[in-house]
Amino acid sequence: MLKKGLLGQLTQTLCCLPGVGPKTAQRMSFHLLQRDRKGAKILANTLIEALDKIGHCQICRTLTEQDVCQICADKAKDSAVVCIVESPADAWIIDQATIFNGHYFVLHGRLSPLDGIGPDELGLDVLEQRMATGGIKELILATNSTVEGEATAYFIGELARKHQVQASRIAHGVPMGGELEFIDSGTLAHAFNGRKNL
Amino acid sequence: MLKKGLLGQLTQTLCCLPGVGPKTAQRMSFHLLQRDRKGAKILANTLIEALDKIGHCQICRTLTEQDVCQICADKAKDSAVVCIVESPADAWIIDQATIFNGHYFVLHGRLSPLDGIGPDELGLDVLEQRMATGGIKELILATNSTVEGEATAYFIGELARKHQVQASRIAHGVPMGGELEFIDSGTLAHAFNGRKNL
Repeated sequence: MLKKGLLGQLTQTLCCLPGVGPKTAQRMSFHLLQRDRKGAKILANTLIEALDKIGHCQICRTLTEQDVCQICADKAKDSAVVCIVESPADAWIIDQATIFNGHYFVLHGRLSPLDGIGPDELGLDVLEQRMATGGIKELILATNSTVEGEATAYFIGELARKHQVQASRIAHGVPMGGELEFIDSGTLAHAFNGRKNL
Repeated sequence: MLKKGLLGQLTQTLCCLPGVGPKTAQRMSFHLLQRDRKGAKILANTLIEALDKIGHCQICRTLTEQDVCQICADKAKDSAVVCIVESPADAWIIDQATIFNGHYFVLHGRLSPLDGIGPDELGLDVLEQRMATGGIKELILATNSTVEGEATAYFIGELARKHQVQASRIAHGVPMGGELEFIDSGTLAHAFNGRKNL
């Protein structure tokens, strides 16, 4: 790979993008410098502006350029029903896919004691305070279906129980259109155990 | 896709990168803002610096931050043997893969009259002048094996003949390790017609 000079440096820094390795980064460098200098200029400036202005919503911790994000500022949304997600992207995708009309709470991660990520790093102290003061009536736990995501959901579920807040976990099972033949055994076992009466 | 606000704007501008669509761009935005703000800052600054400083080599037209690129400035390289390539990336890859010890000449494109790209846009006037003044003894045409690439090679070959400069085209045929069974018929026909006596 190119290592020398500014071009090599640009290639290396482009590797900070997710899913971009040295080869792709090199292609991007050449493309930007040869074919799209205007776009590259706009990209650099937008990136600087975004880094400067985009912070976390004071209520739900999602990414926003205002103090309070659009969803939290929306009076039509029910602030007593809160959906817990791991990342802003998750909140956004749920907002697109469902008719959920409550607020979100973004953890920015999952409980992972080995990495030093405890409840406070995820803002769970703030969430617990809101539950204690009666600001939340229902929690929907939409953390990922990974070991850490499940552990985080369980932990928050316990917090909710402590403060007599109703908590539910999103369903896990066979995805829509999924054929049983091609589904992994873990998902199938989950779907089987979580069967519902018709 | 996110369209509103600075976050949407960042996502849109990231789409200027080659191979990056709206979904990947959104993932990149979230990643940069959530997990790698330091890297994003360095990326933006490096991009601005690169756009500002990286220009074209005065001799071979490749991308460089100096007036004359490293290869052209290298006294050990033979400036009378020139390899013609379409892009700086091509020059770089040939430099890595071969023991070629001459100079390069980067066209930054290929002849494409419909898009308004004629000989002058590719710097062929400069190249012809160098051939006319006897600065070049041999040309190696390493444009891509596309219709336009072939046409460009043919055109430059004619220029070379006019100035009595020896010109050769890189070989086209079955790639190393390629099995005949899986090779497209065009390549196979090329390889068959271009057979060499043992």
